[in-house]
Amino acid sequence: MKIDDLPVRDELRGQSPYGAPQLDVPVQLNTNENPYPLPEPLVARIAERVAEAARALNRYPDRDAVELRTELARYLTRTTGFERGVAQVWAANGSNEVIQQLLQTFGGPGRSALGFEPSYQMHELISRGTGTRWIAGPRRADFTIDLDAAVAALAEHRPDVLFVCSPNNPTGTAVDAATVLALYEAAQAVKPTVVIVDEAYVEFSHRPSLLPLLAGRPLMVVTRTMSKAFGAAGLRLGYLAADAAVVDAVQLVRLPYHLSSVTQATALACLEHTDTLLGYVARLKAERDRLVEALRALGLEVTESDSNFIQFGTFEDPHAVWRAILGHGVLIRDNGVPGHLRVTAGTPEENEAFLAAVSTVIKEL
Amino acid sequence: MKIDDLPVRDELRGQSPYGAPQLDVPVQLNTNENPYPLPEPLVARIAERVAEAARALNRYPDRDAVELRTELARYLTRTTGFERGVAQVWAANGSNEVIQQLLQTFGGPGRSALGFEPSYQMHELISRGTGTRWIAGPRRADFTIDLDAAVAALAEHRPDVLFVCSPNNPTGTAVDAATVLALYEAAQAVKPTVVIVDEAYVEFSHRPSLLPLLAGRPLMVVTRTMSKAFGAAGLRLGYLAADAAVVDAVQLVRLPYHLSSVTQATALACLEHTDTLLGYVARLKAERDRLVEALRALGLEVTESDSNFIQFGTFEDPHAVWRAILGHGVLIRDNGVPGHLRVTAGTPEENEAFLAAVSTVIKEL
Repeated sequence: MKIDDLPVRDELRGQSPYGAPQLDVPVQLNTNENPYPLPEPLVARIAERVAEAARALNRYPDRDAVELRTELARYLTRTTGFERGVAQVWAANGSNEVIQQLLQTFGGPGRSALGFEPSYQMHELISRGTGTRWIAGPRRADFTIDLDAAVAALAEHRPDVLFVCSPNNPTGTAVDAATVLALYEAAQAVKPTVVIVDEAYVEFSHRPSLLPLLAGRPLMVVTRTMSKAFGAAGLRLGYLAADAAVVDAVQLVRLPYHLSSVTQATALACLEHTDTLLGYVARLKAERDRLVEALRALGLEVTESDSNFIQFGTFEDPHAVWRAILGHGVLIRDNGVPGHLRVTAGTPEENEAFLAAVSTVIKEL
Repeated sequence: MKIDDLPVRDELRGQSPYGAPQLDVPVQLNTNENPYPLPEPLVARIAERVAEAARALNRYPDRDAVELRTELARYLTRTTGFERGVAQVWAANGSNEVIQQLLQTFGGPGRSALGFEPSYQMHELISRGTGTRWIAGPRRADFTIDLDAAVAALAEHRPDVLFVCSPNNPTGTAVDAATVLALYEAAQAVKPTVVIVDEAYVEFSHRPSLLPLLAGRPLMVVTRTMSKAFGAAGLRLGYLAADAAVVDAVQLVRLPYHLSSVTQATALACLEHTDTLLGYVARLKAERDRLVEALRALGLEVTESDSNFIQFGTFEDPHAVWRAILGHGVLIRDNGVPGHLRVTAGTPEENEAFLAAVSTVIKEL
């Protein structure tokens, strides 16, 4: 039997699963992971909190994850100065599941979502997976959002959900507060529109978080993750901040007990070590800035980056360049953005290996 | 703001989230949890494996959960004698997420699913959540499946997905292999139909697993969970066994990296202790049988149970009886099945407390 012999939904026929190749190479700079392992005291604390949770593992987890949401709200309040409480924060298995729940609530069959491409591909894939029609919105050639073109797209397509990814994956582009505000207003002028501001990488940005824009904007949602700044991609913990009514609404579609006791315990341990983990973020920001300069010094075109990754080019055949760099033991990402590739900022040693590989490879072009 | 002020999907208006009340009472026999905490050597092993996973938590988890699926396949092979390998097993965050992925693949807008009610309410809720039309199929008054009526319902409604829950929640009713086979054949005779056999509670059954029926039946899927027999409701680990093509197909809709490293590590530790955990299952089966007899001795009508819970009645006002039993510090479940209540088999002490409460309460009726 093959997939196409099964009665799968028509739109799945001929598709292949999403995901970067998981190759075993010395330097992995392809999935925007944080290169710094968790410090040993935190590992010990995770073991301790998980053991405690394991002693009650025969019972279902706290369905509402109250302690975790309280601590996430405290983190947001502390780092943005904008006060959030447990009622305004929701958590799930990765920001992907958060976005899926939002689309099950506010998108779905007969509804549509718009994002400015290129952007995080999962926005489109989760939209399609929830039966939400996907609309590809425009960007300028420098990958910033052209407000006039964006407003025109909103008026033309009348989406129910609007994605604004800042910093944007895979380009690294931040969106300023004035643009997000104008997009929110323009969207609401057409119809009630849920605006999802995806801040998965915001801790790496030169700009402050857009979180304070939530004030007085009940249809704005900010999504976050512990995968990047907290160095916990393996944990799968995403969260959102929004009006309490939005948090109530996603509970109509969340699977009951979606967030395991071990996930909650591990995330709480990580949140106890926030300061240490944000120290690694500071190091990565410096490395990112250094990489940008080094790539420019090699004569490459580098997109302005507010993230822990960098988009660079331009190449006639990016996939050939990707493969050549892989030949040097360095795995980066070919996202399919014409002419471009994406590299994650790693440790200084990893970045040196990448720069050595790329300088060798471009000489051979 | 209230939920209804938001642009939520029409079908969500006026709904409330699924889930039993999480009340803090001495004896909790309401959500079919295993009353035995994990043994301390297993807790220590979980801490050890999670610490190991935490040292690489900055990296994404194994997206395909190969080691975990291999061990789950080994468990199925060992306990049923029917050989399964990694290619024929898939895992997700609870059997709820497994079922959601199956419905996203084989159900969804324009398609329908049929289940025999009363049954596990999440089958209907996840169907609706994925845009799959829900059809309530019939059962006999004794809660067994009437094959003639079932076949007629299949011919009339032509569902794309058929749920067979065995043992059935909330009634405890097992379905024999001949009936499942006849349902599978009858469904395929109408149209290609994915038959989901939900065996969440099968380890507690007097009958063997239906897993061997998968042979030569590529549209049959058996779903399982570690929540009950493995005493790990807090872990949220569900899995399925099916043709390898079905496992390939659900990967088209699964969120990438849906299963965290800590979940995979904890589940693997539990699987190392299978024999100990199945020892608790044997105790619970004996307690279940004792409870059935004791309730019958009280003059109550008890539905035949192959699970770790028991449906009993009949009461003019089951909710009043539920509340009266709660007044004695014992929380059971009012599932909304007319005239009936459901109690989970607990420890001997918990069961005594329940029997004392119910015998007092029925005298006052």
